[in-house]
Amino acid sequence: MAVKENLRPGGRSARVQASVHKAVRELLAAMNRAEVTIPMIAAKAGVTPSTIYRRWGDLQELLADVAVERLRPDMQPVDAGSGEADLQAWAEQYAEEMSSGPGREMIRDVLAAQAGANACKCCEYTRQQIIVISDRAKARGETFPDVDGVMDQVVAPIMYRILFGDVPDAARVRDLVERVMSRA
Amino acid sequence: MAVKENLRPGGRSARVQASVHKAVRELLAAMNRAEVTIPMIAAKAGVTPSTIYRRWGDLQELLADVAVERLRPDMQPVDAGSGEADLQAWAEQYAEEMSSGPGREMIRDVLAAQAGANACKCCEYTRQQIIVISDRAKARGETFPDVDGVMDQVVAPIMYRILFGDVPDAARVRDLVERVMSRA
Repeated sequence: MAVKENLRPGGRSARVQASVHKAVRELLAAMNRAEVTIPMIAAKAGVTPSTIYRRWGDLQELLADVAVERLRPDMQPVDAGSGEADLQAWAEQYAEEMSSGPGREMIRDVLAAQAGANACKCCEYTRQQIIVISDRAKARGETFPDVDGVMDQVVAPIMYRILFGDVPDAARVRDLVERVMSRA
Repeated sequence: MAVKENLRPGGRSARVQASVHKAVRELLAAMNRAEVTIPMIAAKAGVTPSTIYRRWGDLQELLADVAVERLRPDMQPVDAGSGEADLQAWAEQYAEEMSSGPGREMIRDVLAAQAGANACKCCEYTRQQIIVISDRAKARGETFPDVDGVMDQVVAPIMYRILFGDVPDAARVRDLVERVMSRA
């Protein structure tokens, strides 16, 4: 199963995708996810179930595809004046959003799919945000840790704690950022 | 749904659990997990489906319960002569096991369950292993980083990479351990 990227906007395929995604979002808003089925989504989206099976393979892949769209950042990281302040603000918001109920559900959906493509995409979105912060810091003439280091030492611990049952509080997040910055 | 801990060994409840877990393991070894159903497990385990629903709630919780049992470490971390060598050996094995096909499936099952109890248990198993290494290092009179630091800076980056589509290679794992040790 491969969901096509870069669909021609307004093409038949893009319209099917938009309609199916919208149906999933509406159903998830209205009922328990365990009750959502492919025939139900198909009926709401005005397509046949086999269209969905052909394109997404199974419900889990479809849910992952919708979740990763919702995890795509809709803004640039806030410019708070310095690399450290930018990273602090970004990390705090990331921890808050990802540990929220909807955040956890989206992560669960992305990780539950057998194909790892959506999980990679999700990681890539996060990486892009760190790159923006890093580029901005360098443009200001500041030193900034390498992006892999930030992923390993700030993003990974936040996500690990969220997934394995802990809530990373603001003090912990600040501490992670301070540590990685002091080593840059 | 709460799976009872500390069941009286040999009691009726413990026997049901053992039989159901065994049925799940055998079915997962023999067929695709997407084909496994609760009635199928019940038939193999010699219990009624409603026994399983009552005890585990749904298939996902049952799979998570079985997976976390399999993730329970079956040995103490190897004593390689020093805290750093112990942590290196442990981290390398952890990365290898968790990034293997069965490892990834077990993690996915644990994380897919709605109740987070199994994920916490899984994190706690890992933590216990780090505590053993830390205690051993301290008994030898070595300095060793605090356990939270190791969880954040070694365990979390390994797990993040595995979950979000990367394979942490041996060099990367070594580097993570060296970094946390040099700061202790």
